[in-house]
Amino acid sequence: MSKNDNNKKAIALHKKLKGKITINAAMEVTSRAELSLVYTPGVAAVSSLLHKNPKLARDYTIKGKTVAVISDGSAVLGLGNIGPYGALPVMEGKCALFKTFANVEAFPIVLNTQNIDEIVETVCAIAPVFGGINLEDFAAPNCFEIEERIKARLDIPVMHDDQHGTAIAVLAALINAAKVVKKDLKKLKIVVSGAGAAGTAICKLLVKAGVKDITMLDSRGIVDKSRKEAHKKELAKHTNPRKVKGGLREALAGADALIGVSGPGLATAADIRLMAKKAIVLAMANPSPEIMPEEAKKGGAMVVGTGRSDYPNQINNSLVFPGVFRGALDNRVKKITDEMKLKAAKNLAALVKRPTADKIVPGPFEKGVAAAVAKAIR
Amino acid sequence: MSKNDNNKKAIALHKKLKGKITINAAMEVTSRAELSLVYTPGVAAVSSLLHKNPKLARDYTIKGKTVAVISDGSAVLGLGNIGPYGALPVMEGKCALFKTFANVEAFPIVLNTQNIDEIVETVCAIAPVFGGINLEDFAAPNCFEIEERIKARLDIPVMHDDQHGTAIAVLAALINAAKVVKKDLKKLKIVVSGAGAAGTAICKLLVKAGVKDITMLDSRGIVDKSRKEAHKKELAKHTNPRKVKGGLREALAGADALIGVSGPGLATAADIRLMAKKAIVLAMANPSPEIMPEEAKKGGAMVVGTGRSDYPNQINNSLVFPGVFRGALDNRVKKITDEMKLKAAKNLAALVKRPTADKIVPGPFEKGVAAAVAKAIR
Repeated sequence: MSKNDNNKKAIALHKKLKGKITINAAMEVTSRAELSLVYTPGVAAVSSLLHKNPKLARDYTIKGKTVAVISDGSAVLGLGNIGPYGALPVMEGKCALFKTFANVEAFPIVLNTQNIDEIVETVCAIAPVFGGINLEDFAAPNCFEIEERIKARLDIPVMHDDQHGTAIAVLAALINAAKVVKKDLKKLKIVVSGAGAAGTAICKLLVKAGVKDITMLDSRGIVDKSRKEAHKKELAKHTNPRKVKGGLREALAGADALIGVSGPGLATAADIRLMAKKAIVLAMANPSPEIMPEEAKKGGAMVVGTGRSDYPNQINNSLVFPGVFRGALDNRVKKITDEMKLKAAKNLAALVKRPTADKIVPGPFEKGVAAAVAKAIR
Repeated sequence: MSKNDNNKKAIALHKKLKGKITINAAMEVTSRAELSLVYTPGVAAVSSLLHKNPKLARDYTIKGKTVAVISDGSAVLGLGNIGPYGALPVMEGKCALFKTFANVEAFPIVLNTQNIDEIVETVCAIAPVFGGINLEDFAAPNCFEIEERIKARLDIPVMHDDQHGTAIAVLAALINAAKVVKKDLKKLKIVVSGAGAAGTAICKLLVKAGVKDITMLDSRGIVDKSRKEAHKKELAKHTNPRKVKGGLREALAGADALIGVSGPGLATAADIRLMAKKAIVLAMANPSPEIMPEEAKKGGAMVVGTGRSDYPNQINNSLVFPGVFRGALDNRVKKITDEMKLKAAKNLAALVKRPTADKIVPGPFEKGVAAAVAKAIR
């Protein structure tokens, strides 16, 4: 189906559904006796109980099973800053996937503000009803401060999925890609194009996984210690050990893997030819990757992954976020730690028993994906 | 069933349900083709559309069918200020009733703040996802400022149900009670005990309905022009035309109706005997009314209503709020006006074809209640 046809079909489907989630009563109330249990006067006994012991809210209310999917619409898909109404269909879609893939009940919240303080205060103010918070499509660099400040304030798990969901999916893909090309993951020379939310989180998780040689690129070239912005300075501390100067071509020379989280039109076959033999290319921009798989292969890449469903190796957050929050809810986890993320990536990679160049991650509809990830979040 | 048994049963039921609402995917996603419509890449076309024209959100997202039930837990049932976790079971119950009685999808939000500015900012920040906002169990006098400020900021209907839902239900009951006692509604001498959220809204709506002689009471006695607090001063402008001084007994002398929205233990049969013949007593405190029906009848009252399900004439907000928001969503109403509230009360009263002393309002499970109220909200 052409892109245009798919778009038309998507618009028609959304108009028909009028919302991709529905809310139902867990128990239909059909008599005064039931009304006196679900609502007044009986509900007062439950309210008194939770007032005295708020921790019991997880056992007596939706808090134990419900996650918020929250966005300010500042960086939605590849569409940029399109605000709360633009963001809403994506958040609803994510809520539908939460339910479909992991039986997590999720509700979308889109914010009528892009001010950091207001976002932090709003999310903390509405947190009591939720058992976890999935931040989504917040632009860098604000997303880092927003996530850190909310995490510090709340005793429920908070995860900016564009950062950590992506990082877990990419690490899982790299673990298996390294097996396919028969190289040691920790010894890979890895180039990450894009130092936004995803690129930054990928870099941090790769460091935690023991990778020693990462080169980060942004629109100004290789990130190094000369950078002034706080988060770029921080990245420079952990990257570019060989002190390479320049841009993409300089970074790619001899590299084992290229991870694209920047946008379409980044590289050509000629660029890929600069890389080491049996190169790995994960071009994650969606729907148009940093380099098309055919072109990457032409340049000699051995393993190629994208975010697209029409090529092999679809590396998508939907492999990750449902399981992360399923595990967090089941195990009443208060913080999602780096150790949990590493374990989640390993569990996800391990689902592919014999990785090949065309199969480094499970498909989104394979059984057991969410359960394998959930096992890591405890 | 004893109160204690009902409480135990309510606690057991809540523990079993683990949340009185459930969230489901409107369409189960089972294939990559469906995934590409509900989520990326297809959803991007819908996001772009809503970015350009946010008004279309009602047609393409849950905004068109979803209401928020929001509380800060500062005045929950008769339990007082029990905070967000204490409030949550009540809000969830209300969401279940929204669905059951009017097919309105409602989601509970309980706030981790009781600061007026923070409440206003939070509610306005999360408003984009909702088609209406039901404020619930906010204490007076803050509730007045909170509601007014939020209403002024948003283009979706906002209603503090403890005020306006109660006022509509009481006016409906009074319309029919006046028929039963064969008195003119507008000429009734009405005493309202309680000048909080409910009492204030009842007073204002009765004035709009043409009632001329209202005497308001609070814990300090009859509200008159000597009062200093802003909202009491405002009430005094429209009430106590005969300039009665004193407390309950002075107010009740010759009165046609007593509306109790203050709490149990207000009045005795001897007090009711001070009222005019064929007195109307609506004792709304729940579960323990201001005076028990037997006692009110002993004092000569002809029509007695309460909030309880085990006596005739249960006057409960659940007759009102589902229909108000059903109508507001269906007709894309931006503000719930006084005219709509008056019409809603009239429609609700008209459902009882031949009012009697034991039947001045419909029962909560009678067919057509929500539809009749909804017709008024346009």
